[in-house]
Amino acid sequence: MAPVAQTDSSSSEYYQLVNSIKPDYITISEYIFLRIYQLGIRSVFGVPGDFNLNFLEHLYDVEGLDWVGCCNELNSAYACDGYTKTCDKMSVMVTTYGVGELSALAGVAGMYSEYSPMLHIVGTSALSMKNSNKRMHHLLSGSNTYGSPDHFVYEETATKYSCVQGSIRDDAMEACDTVDHVIREIHRHLRPGYLFLPCDLTEMRVPVSRLDEPLGSEYEPQNFVKAGTVVDTILQRVYASQNMAVLVDYFTGRCKMTGALGVLLDKLAGKTNVFDTFMGKGIVSEDVSGYVGTYQAGMDNEQLAGVLEDADLVLHLGAFDVEMNSGLFTSKLATERVISMNIDSVVVCGEIYTDLNMRDVFEQLVARLEGERVAASKKYAVEPYLRSSGANALNLVDLSNKLESTLTADDVLIVDTGSFMFGMGTLKLHGARFVNQCLWAAIGFAIPATLGACIAKREMGSNGRVITVEGDGAAEMTLQELASLVRYGLDPVVYILNNDGYTIERVIKGPYRSYNDIATNWNWTQMVTCFGGEKPGTRISNRQDLAQLQYQRGLHLVELIVPKFDVPQSLSNMVIRSKSKS
Amino acid sequence: MAPVAQTDSSSSEYYQLVNSIKPDYITISEYIFLRIYQLGIRSVFGVPGDFNLNFLEHLYDVEGLDWVGCCNELNSAYACDGYTKTCDKMSVMVTTYGVGELSALAGVAGMYSEYSPMLHIVGTSALSMKNSNKRMHHLLSGSNTYGSPDHFVYEETATKYSCVQGSIRDDAMEACDTVDHVIREIHRHLRPGYLFLPCDLTEMRVPVSRLDEPLGSEYEPQNFVKAGTVVDTILQRVYASQNMAVLVDYFTGRCKMTGALGVLLDKLAGKTNVFDTFMGKGIVSEDVSGYVGTYQAGMDNEQLAGVLEDADLVLHLGAFDVEMNSGLFTSKLATERVISMNIDSVVVCGEIYTDLNMRDVFEQLVARLEGERVAASKKYAVEPYLRSSGANALNLVDLSNKLESTLTADDVLIVDTGSFMFGMGTLKLHGARFVNQCLWAAIGFAIPATLGACIAKREMGSNGRVITVEGDGAAEMTLQELASLVRYGLDPVVYILNNDGYTIERVIKGPYRSYNDIATNWNWTQMVTCFGGEKPGTRISNRQDLAQLQYQRGLHLVELIVPKFDVPQSLSNMVIRSKSKS
Repeated sequence: MAPVAQTDSSSSEYYQLVNSIKPDYITISEYIFLRIYQLGIRSVFGVPGDFNLNFLEHLYDVEGLDWVGCCNELNSAYACDGYTKTCDKMSVMVTTYGVGELSALAGVAGMYSEYSPMLHIVGTSALSMKNSNKRMHHLLSGSNTYGSPDHFVYEETATKYSCVQGSIRDDAMEACDTVDHVIREIHRHLRPGYLFLPCDLTEMRVPVSRLDEPLGSEYEPQNFVKAGTVVDTILQRVYASQNMAVLVDYFTGRCKMTGALGVLLDKLAGKTNVFDTFMGKGIVSEDVSGYVGTYQAGMDNEQLAGVLEDADLVLHLGAFDVEMNSGLFTSKLATERVISMNIDSVVVCGEIYTDLNMRDVFEQLVARLEGERVAASKKYAVEPYLRSSGANALNLVDLSNKLESTLTADDVLIVDTGSFMFGMGTLKLHGARFVNQCLWAAIGFAIPATLGACIAKREMGSNGRVITVEGDGAAEMTLQELASLVRYGLDPVVYILNNDGYTIERVIKGPYRSYNDIATNWNWTQMVTCFGGEKPGTRISNRQDLAQLQYQRGLHLVELIVPKFDVPQSLSNMVIRSKSKS
Repeated sequence: MAPVAQTDSSSSEYYQLVNSIKPDYITISEYIFLRIYQLGIRSVFGVPGDFNLNFLEHLYDVEGLDWVGCCNELNSAYACDGYTKTCDKMSVMVTTYGVGELSALAGVAGMYSEYSPMLHIVGTSALSMKNSNKRMHHLLSGSNTYGSPDHFVYEETATKYSCVQGSIRDDAMEACDTVDHVIREIHRHLRPGYLFLPCDLTEMRVPVSRLDEPLGSEYEPQNFVKAGTVVDTILQRVYASQNMAVLVDYFTGRCKMTGALGVLLDKLAGKTNVFDTFMGKGIVSEDVSGYVGTYQAGMDNEQLAGVLEDADLVLHLGAFDVEMNSGLFTSKLATERVISMNIDSVVVCGEIYTDLNMRDVFEQLVARLEGERVAASKKYAVEPYLRSSGANALNLVDLSNKLESTLTADDVLIVDTGSFMFGMGTLKLHGARFVNQCLWAAIGFAIPATLGACIAKREMGSNGRVITVEGDGAAEMTLQELASLVRYGLDPVVYILNNDGYTIERVIKGPYRSYNDIATNWNWTQMVTCFGGEKPGTRISNRQDLAQLQYQRGLHLVELIVPKFDVPQSLSNMVIRSKSKS
C-alpha cells in the first residue's frame, strides 16, 4: 500500500490519499507503522523473531518505511540512539519477546538516562497464552517448575527503564488509544517508551479514520502565566547582573531550543562570555561572539573554568547535572548565582520550579529580553589551548589535530567512551554535531551508533559524513555492526584506536593486568572486506601519514597504532586527583 | 599468594597451608575468590569496568584461578552457561554496575530459565555514594533530573532473574554471611545468584578462619521419612505396571542423578523401553538396553511416540515440561500414568509433592527397587530412522550424518537454536554431551558457549573436542567471541551454516522478506585469521568434501554452504501444523 502523507495531514490531499487507497479498517500493525510514518520517521531498526514476524509483515504495507536489520538487539538500541541524536527524531526499534527485548535493555537504559526518545515495540506471546499456564520458549521460568508462568515479567522490568508502557489488548479502540498515548508520552518526556504487541493481535482491525488526527511531535508550552512570572524574575536577575555568562548544555539540543538560543546569542553578541559543557558541545559554534570554551571545572583548563566561576550570574541553558558533564564533581558554580533550566524544571538561584521546564520559559525569555539592558561582562585573557603531540609516536593529539582540521558543519562526530573522549573538551567542532553516550558510558556504543547516524543522515538527505572514533576494546564489543554499514552501503569514516586493550581502565587500575587485555593481533584493516565490503581499511602508524590521509568514498576504516598508555591530559589529571583522594 | 587447597579442607594440611601463608585477615574480595576456588572452580568469566577493577585485582591473589575476558557481557553470560552445562560446576561472572550487568541480563535470564547455576558478581558504585544524591556515569537517570537517583535499581531488577541476591555492606561478618548464603542458595536452586560488591568495600578485612568450613556444592537429601513414603507409593505403581517405560529428561543431568540412573537402567536391563527427551538427550546412551529414541510427541516420528504413549506407566525422570521439550504442546502422556520428578517436585500420577524433589527420592527409589519384580514391557517394532539427504545439494542431513559418524563419548556437541536444532531428535550422540539452550532459545548462544565449554574441558583435563553447529544469522549476533577462542588457544570445530539469513524464521513467515536477510557475502573462512588465528577456515559446498573432512588441530571453522530453505523434516512438520491451526 502507498504511504499516508506525512506533512499537512489535515489537508484535503491527505483525505484524498487515504480514501483512495484505504478501506475503512486497517490492521493495528499497519496503524502503528502509519503513526510512525506520520511523524516523519522513515527507518525502523531491530531484529526479527518468532513473536514479531506477523507485525513486521505489515511494515511492507507502508511504502517509504524501511527496515534496518541489526546484527543483535543491543546494537540495535545503540543504532537507535545514534539515529535520534543525529536527527532529533524519535527512533523506532522492534524486538521479540524476552530474549530480544532483554538483550536490548542496557541500550534502552542508556537512552532513558540520556533522554533519547525511542519507541520500542516488542512482539510478545499471544494474548491467548498470556493467561494460560503453558510454558514456552523465550518465557522466563518462574520461581518453580510447576506454577503458572508470568507472561508479564518483562513488561514489569521495562517500567524502570522507560517513561511509558502500553500493552495492547483485544479492544480495537483501546489499542489505538494505547499506541497514541505511548507515542505522545515519548515526545513529552523525550525518553524510550514500550509498546507490547501480542503476536495473535497483529491483524486486529482498527478504523483508519483514527489517523486523521496526527500526533504532533512538538511540545506545546504549558502554564503560560506562571512561566511569564518566572521570566520576569529571571529578567530582573539578568538586568541586575554585572558579569553574566551563558553556559550551553545538553537539553538545549534535546528540547529543540537551538533556534531560540541563536536569537539569544545574537541579542547578547559581544556582551557575554559563552561556554558550553561536555554534553552540550556542538550546540553552539566555537565561532560565536564571546565563546570562551568548554567548562570542565577542575578537570582540565582551570584558567578557563575560573572565568565562568567568576561570573555573578550564570544562565545555564539545558542543564544536565551529572558527574561526567560537570567536571567529575569539581564544579564550583554556586547555586545562588545560577539560573538553570532543562527538560523538567527551572531553577532560579536556588528556587526550583518543577511544574515548568525549559520549553515553557525559554522562548518567552528570549523574546522578551532587551539586549541593551544587559551589562557587558568582563573580558578575561584566557591563553589559547595549545595541543602538543610531542616528538614521539603517533598519539591521540594527532587525531585531535586531524579532526579539528577536517571537520565541517555537515559532519557528525561520534566518539565512544574511552581515553579519547576525555580530550574532547578542547576540540573545536566547527559546527559538526557531536554524538556520544558519555553519561551512560557503555563502551561499544560507537559502531552501532554510526549505523544509526548514517541512516539518519541519509533520511535527512544531508551532506557531510559521519566520523567515528573508538578504542579497540570498545569496538570489539559490538564489532559485527560494521557488517551493517557494508550491507546498507553507508559511508562513515571509522577510526579504530589500536592501543592493545582497555587503556582507560589501565590508567585507573591494573596497567599490566590480564583483565585489561583483549584478544590481540586482529587484522583490523581486513575486517571490512571480511564483512563483504569492497575496500580494506587503512593502517596508520605515524603522524605524517595521518595528516595526509584522504578519506575514501564509502565505508573507510582507519586503524591508528597508538601507544598503550597514551591518554589525554584531562584523563591523567582525573586519575591523579582521584588517587590522591583515596 | 598461593591457593588454599580445594579438597579435604578440614585436614591438617589445609590448616598448615593457610596458616603458613595467611595473616588472620584477608580482604572480602580474596574471600570471595577463595570460596570460588574451594568449590573446584578455576575460571572466572567477565568484562572489566571501573566498578569492578578493585575487586578483580584480588583474583591474582589466588593462584590457579584464571581470568577469562570476554568481548562483551552477553557473550560472557553465554560462555558461563556453556561452561556450566559442560562440567556441571557453578560458573562465575564478573561485570560492572549498570552497563555491564544489564548487558548480561538476557543471558542470565536464560540460565535462570534453564536452571544453570552461576554466581554473578557485580562491582557497584561505592557504598558512600549509594545513599547520596550525586549523579554519576552508569547510574540510571531517574524519573526526573532533580530528585535523588536510585543506586539500587539494578539490584531490584535482578530479583526477577535470579534465585538469590546479596548486597555487601560494611560489616565484615555480615558480608561473609552474605557471600556464603548466595553461594549456598545457588547450589540449592541450581540457578544464577547475584553478589553486589560496592567498589569502596573491596579491601574490607574479614577473618580468614571463616574459610575453615567449606561450602559444599552437593545437595543433602531432605525429608527422608516422607521421601520413603513416596518411594513406597512409586514402587507399588512400578510393580503393578505391566508395560512401564522410562523417560530420561533434563533435570536428571542438572541434579547430578546420572549415577543413580545408571544403576536403575542396569536393574531394568532388557525389561523396559527407554526414551529420552530433547533437552535430556545425551544423558543416556543410545546403546543402553531398551533404548527406543527421543520422544518428540507429534512433532516427528509418530510410531516412536506411540510406544511411549502406549505405556501404562511412564517414569519421567528429571521432567522439564516446556513446549520445546515436549513436542510443542503435542505430548499425549496422560497425567494419571506418569510418575515424574525434578528439581523442585515429585508428581505421582497426578498427586504433586512440592516439599520433595528428585534429589530426595530418586537414589532411595533406585536403591530399593527390585528389578525382578518389574514386569517386562511390551516390545514394539519401530522402524529404524532412515535419514536421507536426497540427490541434491549439500544439506543439513549430510551434517547429521557427519556428526553421527564422528562424535565420540569425550566430545561436547553444541547446537544453537535454529533449523538444525529441530533435526537433533534423531541424531545419535554416542555418549557425547549435548549442550544447547533450547528453552530460552536465544540465537547467538553457541559461539560464546563454545568458549565456556572449551574452558570447562580444559579445566577438567578431559579429552575429546567441542563441536559446534550454528546458523549464520545466529553466529552474527555474537561473532566476536571467535576471537576469544583464538586468544585462549582453544580447539573447537565450529560449523557455520551459510544459508543466507534467518532460515528458521523464513519458514515461519516472510521467506523472501528483508527482515529475514542478514548482511551477506561474509568471508567466513577468513574470519579466524582476521581475529589473529593462524589457520583460515574450510568452505564446504558438496557432500563428498564434508564426508571426507578431517578436523584440523586448533580452532577449525567450517563453513557449510547449504540451501536457503533447507530445514529438517520435524521443523517443516511443526510449521505445517501451526499454519493449519491458525
